[in-house]
Order: sequence, then C-alpha cells, then structure tokens
Amino acid sequence: MSGLLIKNATIIPLDGRRGEEAWFKGDIAVEDTLIKEIGENLQEKYGDYEVIAADGNLVLPGFINCHTHAAMTLLRGYADDMQLQEWLSQKIWPREEHLKADDIYWGSLLAVLEMIKSGTTAFADMYFMMEKTAEAVSQAGIRAVLARGMMGFGQKALETMKESEELIKNWHGQAEGRITCMLGPHAPYTCPPDYLKEVIKLADKHNVGIHIHLAETAVEVNDMKEKYGLSPIKLMDSIGLFTDRRVVAAHCVHLGEEEIEILIENKVGIAHNPESNMKLASGVASVPELLQKGALVSLGTDGASSNNNLDMIGEMRSCALLHKVFSQEPTVVPAQQVLEMATADGAKALGLDRVGSLQPGYKADMIIVDVNEPHMIPLYNPVANLVYAAHASDVKTMIVNGKVIMKDRIVKTLDEEKIKYMAKKCGEDLMRR
Amino acid sequence: MSGLLIKNATIIPLDGRRGEEAWFKGDIAVEDTLIKEIGENLQEKYGDYEVIAADGNLVLPGFINCHTHAAMTLLRGYADDMQLQEWLSQKIWPREEHLKADDIYWGSLLAVLEMIKSGTTAFADMYFMMEKTAEAVSQAGIRAVLARGMMGFGQKALETMKESEELIKNWHGQAEGRITCMLGPHAPYTCPPDYLKEVIKLADKHNVGIHIHLAETAVEVNDMKEKYGLSPIKLMDSIGLFTDRRVVAAHCVHLGEEEIEILIENKVGIAHNPESNMKLASGVASVPELLQKGALVSLGTDGASSNNNLDMIGEMRSCALLHKVFSQEPTVVPAQQVLEMATADGAKALGLDRVGSLQPGYKADMIIVDVNEPHMIPLYNPVANLVYAAHASDVKTMIVNGKVIMKDRIVKTLDEEKIKYMAKKCGEDLMRR
Repeated sequence: MSGLLIKNATIIPLDGRRGEEAWFKGDIAVEDTLIKEIGENLQEKYGDYEVIAADGNLVLPGFINCHTHAAMTLLRGYADDMQLQEWLSQKIWPREEHLKADDIYWGSLLAVLEMIKSGTTAFADMYFMMEKTAEAVSQAGIRAVLARGMMGFGQKALETMKESEELIKNWHGQAEGRITCMLGPHAPYTCPPDYLKEVIKLADKHNVGIHIHLAETAVEVNDMKEKYGLSPIKLMDSIGLFTDRRVVAAHCVHLGEEEIEILIENKVGIAHNPESNMKLASGVASVPELLQKGALVSLGTDGASSNNNLDMIGEMRSCALLHKVFSQEPTVVPAQQVLEMATADGAKALGLDRVGSLQPGYKADMIIVDVNEPHMIPLYNPVANLVYAAHASDVKTMIVNGKVIMKDRIVKTLDEEKIKYMAKKCGEDLMRR
Repeated sequence: MSGLLIKNATIIPLDGRRGEEAWFKGDIAVEDTLIKEIGENLQEKYGDYEVIAADGNLVLPGFINCHTHAAMTLLRGYADDMQLQEWLSQKIWPREEHLKADDIYWGSLLAVLEMIKSGTTAFADMYFMMEKTAEAVSQAGIRAVLARGMMGFGQKALETMKESEELIKNWHGQAEGRITCMLGPHAPYTCPPDYLKEVIKLADKHNVGIHIHLAETAVEVNDMKEKYGLSPIKLMDSIGLFTDRRVVAAHCVHLGEEEIEILIENKVGIAHNPESNMKLASGVASVPELLQKGALVSLGTDGASSNNNLDMIGEMRSCALLHKVFSQEPTVVPAQQVLEMATADGAKALGLDRVGSLQPGYKADMIIVDVNEPHMIPLYNPVANLVYAAHASDVKTMIVNGKVIMKDRIVKTLDEEKIKYMAKKCGEDLMRR
C-alpha cells in the first residue's frame, strides 16, 4: 500500500470548526487521491507511507482562486493606474488581439507556476484558446475549472459557442478528474439575453456550470437597466441563468437588496475580487452584508493585469482590511471567515466535490505553510497569522489529488526555468507585434 | 581603497525622475558609508572593490517605515478583528503592562529582522524602554529614528520626559550616526497642551524632532474639539508644535481643508498607515488630496499588532489600491508616487540627511530585489511590478551605511535563529503573566 503521511502538523481543517478549535496538532494519511485519516501519531498505522515532515508548520487546504484569466500574466505591469475603459480599449484589448496559442500556453504555465508557489491548488479561469490552459493545468497537476470566454455579438457568437463545446468535449472531467469545464459567457453587456438563453441550453446539454462577470461596475448596471429595464442580476434571473445550476458570478460589486436575495436563493457562487476592484476603482462589494445574510462568497484575484499578482494570501488580507475600513466596523470579515472564503467556500462556489476542506474521504489537496520566518512569530493564532501576516513565499509544499506538486519550494511537476524563460520571450515578442 | 561595486543592476534611483526614465541599467560604486558613483561599466575604475552581482535585478533605496512600534511584534496575532477601544483597553494595554526590558529587546530584534528581510533600511519607532530598541538597531546595522512614547498625565508625565531626555543623551547620533532620536508625545488626548509646551522646549533644547499620533480616529477629533475647541492639528498649531522643527505626524486620517493647509505650510511629515487604518477601521486618510496639494506624505506600517506585519511592499500596494477605490479614481496614487512615499519622501519626513535616494554623495542604503520569481515576470515596468506584484521575499540583499546587512537572504549582522527562539520564548512567557 502506498501513500503519504504528513507528520507533526498544525492542521487547520476548514471543516466548519471555528475559534480555538479551528486548528489542532496531528498527522494526515493520504491514500491514492484522498485523505484517508486525520489523527494523532498515525506513523505506526501507516509505517510504510512516504513521510512528509510538517515540523509543526501549518497544513491546510490549498487556496481556491475562483476568478482569474491565467494567460493575462503576459500583460502584468503592461498598463496600470489608468481609467478602466481607456485601459481596456487602448491597452488590453488591442494587445490581446495579438495573443497566439503559444502565448496562451506559456502565459498559463507562468500563472500556474505562480499559483503553485503561492498555495493555490485550484482555480477558475475564463479566457480564450483554453485548450492551451487545459494542457498547462494537466501538466502542472493542480485543479481547474475552465471556461472559454464567450462573446454574444457578430461572428464571435457562434465561434465562441463552438469552441466552448469543443473544450467541454475534450477536457471536462479529464486529467484524472482535475479539470472540469464551465461555459463562460463574458457578461450581460457582451452577451445579449437571446444568446444567453442558448448558453443555458448548452450548459444543460453538457451538465456544466456557468462562469460570468456580473455587476462589476456602476456603468454596467446603469447600461443594463437602460437597455433591458433590469439590473444585471435581475436580467440573469429573468432568463433562468441561475436556476438549478452551478453559477460563478465574478465581481458582484453593485448589488441592491433584491439582487442579494436572488444570489442567495439560487446559491450563486460569488467570486469576490477585492484587489482588482480596488485597482480599477470599480467599487466595494457588500461582502459583510452578503456574508451576514448567508450568501456563498468566494475569493478570486482576477487576471494579473489588474491585480498584479495571483497571490491568494495577499487577496485574503486585502479582503479583510478593505471591508473593515469601508464598513467602519473592524469586526467584520474576520480572519477565519476570509480563510473559509479562500478555501471551503471556493470549492462550493466552483462545484468541486469533496475539495476545500481537510476531512477523511476528501481530495488530498493541501499546502504546508512555514511558520519560521520572523513575520510569522509569535504564533498565538495560526489563522490570524496566515491571513494578516503571512507571505506567499511561506507556502513550502503542495499536494494535489494525493500527489506532491511542490516540496520545499521546488515545483516537481513543471520545468520552472523553462517556463520563466519562455514566458519572458512570449512577453517580449508580444510587445513587438 | 575598499568599497563595494554593485554590478549590472536595474537602478531605480528615486531621485525625482519619473516615467520611463525612473529606471536604467548600471553599476553603483560605494565607498565607506556613501554612494561614490552611479554609471555604466564602473568595474575598470573600481577594480579592487568587492563586487556584488545584481544580475539585472532591481536596486533601489531601502524602504523607510515612518511609523511603527517595533517591540509590538510580540503582540502579533494576539488580538484581532476587534473594536479599537476594546482591543486597546482589554487586550493591548493590559498585556503591555507585563512587558519587561528583555521583551522589548527581543521583540525589537524580531521586528528589525523582519524589516531587514522585507527591505526596510530605516524606521521611526515610538514605544517604551527604547534603550533596548536602540541596542537592537545598533547591532542590526540599519537606521532608526527613536522616540520614547510620552504620556502627559500623572506620574508618567515626568517619568517619560526624563526617559526621553536620557534616550537622547545616550543615543542621538550614535551607532555611526544611524540612530537619531525624537521626542514622542503620544497624542493630544494623552498629552495636554501644557505638557506639550514642555515637550517643545525639550525638543528645542536638544534640537530634535517630534513624533506624534494625530487625528487617527473621528472620536479623537471630536473629543479634542469638545475639550479645546480645536481639532488635533489646529491645537498643535496653536501651541507652535509644528513651527520650525521636524515633526512626524502619524495617521492624519481625519483632516479638514484648514488642517491640510497647516500640515503643508509647516512641511509636517505625515506618516500614512493604510493597513492599520483599514484593520482598525479608523478611516481613510485623504492621501490623493494631500499629494495633489503638495503635502509631505510618507508611509508606515504601524505596530505588528494592528497590521500584522512590517512589510513595506505590501503597505505600498495597500496604499495605492485603497485610495483608488475610495476616491473612485484609478489614476490616483500611481506606483511611482507610492514608491516615492516609501523611500525618498520617508527620508524627508524623518529628517534623514542624504537618505532615501540613490545619488552620488548620498548614504549607501539600498536593497536588491529579485525579478526572477514567476510573479515578477514579465518585467515591462519595474516600478509597477515592485508595487503591484512583488513579495517581501523578493528582497535578496541589503546594504546600509555602506555595509552589507543581508546577502541572498542571509542576515549578516544578526543571529536570526537565536532571535526567533528568544522572541518566541518572550511571547510565551508574556502570555503566562
């Protein structure tokens, strides 16, 4: 019998326990792709398993980035401190026109590498030429929920529909089940209702979820109200987009009370992207209210061109701090809650089965976070240190689907130097086009 | 002749140049404590100097943390997600009563270690038993501006006055000039005007600056208006605290137009602490307005119990992102400006002579930041990557006052393992008292 034994860990299981019960000392036995047992002194029972010494470090579920555009790493730092529309229309969109399949491949690998090195074991992506991103994920050994971004106008309407279906046929459930697919209609302002109805039909045909941008800016909300007499959320509700399916709604910055009710009633997975919303000045989502009312709120980084990194620890910190100051209430979005958003609730939002929590029978997706750097000392409260003090570089080791992906900061599944070299080259070439 | 030659760097001098001129390739020659020359191919001229290969990495002035309480690292993660008054009165103050000289020493060393490993070459501190912090700084080899926190009520009034004068006599200008002292009257609500007038006299007697908390919360502003008929800033102005001396005013969250004018006219160094203000929900300082009107705004982390780290890269990012979303204007506080706040303007705020910028004749205080981790690729704009994408762990090497303090993440001046061991022990003991 082969397996892994993570020894002498401070386990943060994210299994619903809170307060001082939210962490405890123990070992974790992993068999094949699953967590077999969590307990004390498991060495005797699993003596022939490969031991991974946690040495008192934190072991917790890997982070789940619920909204990003992986290959946009190639546009990191290309255009910043700009107005959203100017940034999109003068910088991002024209440059995206020049992206080739190879760019998507190396850009996705760069993103996946960055995610692994900052503790993200699963992510939801929406972009184009997604087969290339799927290849990257397949090689990396982590988990992803992939959607081809769909545009409901002109020639792109049919083209992106076709490519989405191709992606599902080729990749849904592939890579040992680590890759699932969704449909990715970009947003209500790029996908009119009739088109979205076709998207819904296609989602039902393949039994997949939908990943969409909703209510990101006040302009979008006003435009939709003007055009359709309904807010983006109500418009989606009116065509049944939320009904009986997994939906990931990115942003949800501008919501009224009725919109919040709709999202809660339909168990929509809200992917909150605080740093992107801050950097683009899109606004501040009502996260404390959403959480208090029981909405399913997860966390995402958005693409690296509006963030500009894919670091979920930093994103957790930004989330907690932003909502405290914005609501003038320092008790909201406490460390434990934002950590749940970044793990267990992320898995729920993406419809990942038995992921996001350390429990027997769950997928063995976990990270070991070092507590020995000066900024992690003392360690009175591991959850507080993780959210408020930790750095991405404290993530030492990663296991996904029972396989060691990174050990002591060495990524085992990818050729890091080659990826960095190729991504740099793709970026340089892209800027010359 | 001995010296250092930093070879093949991407230099970000922070000398007033902006835009694409804000960085360039070159070498830096350091002689004794000063920068001797910046230019291309200096190897021939300085052939006998010790070479530090920058290998294309970023070289810039070290960060200047303009407001912290170093020894509060021992209270990191001890109490979070609480109301400010409850947090202070039920958690922080009672525990601070138990702090002993040894705690201050090891807590300060832990802070200094964390600061070195995240690129901070100088910091302004206000706490108690500051001789212990001075010892830590002296050993570490970095720069600090130290102030004994003064309380204007009861027995503490005279006691803290006396200790402040002692600190100045023992440490002002010491440690090869790396330590300067200020007076640290805590705040207007803990130091009444008559007491502050005595503080001013003492400052003049020793020709030192003043470091004070001002307008941190709305409650403070209201209380001062009620008690003295003046806002904290106007009250300070009325007693001449700002006149003709270097003043570091921490926080300055709640300001009106007249207060802003007073701060600008007197060239007061505002130490903005975005993460602490966010975490404690103190409010959002009018940083875009202050900068636009020409105020001297620097950056600080505040103590590790309200942050909870001393990472200035994260603080820069939080600063830029917070003000964009709060002012609903993504162009404010751009990357270059927040980097100036964290370096050159910090030096001005603290009155550090020829510090905060890489120029011939300036103190050789600088850091080398690695650009080879996935999150720093591509590198179209080094300033944007530094502010929006970098991690503290990218800081590889530090030189202060011409001396190598850290090389390739190994701190040369301190016994890192011993400090971490002792700080942990102090923390454990403190929690038992």
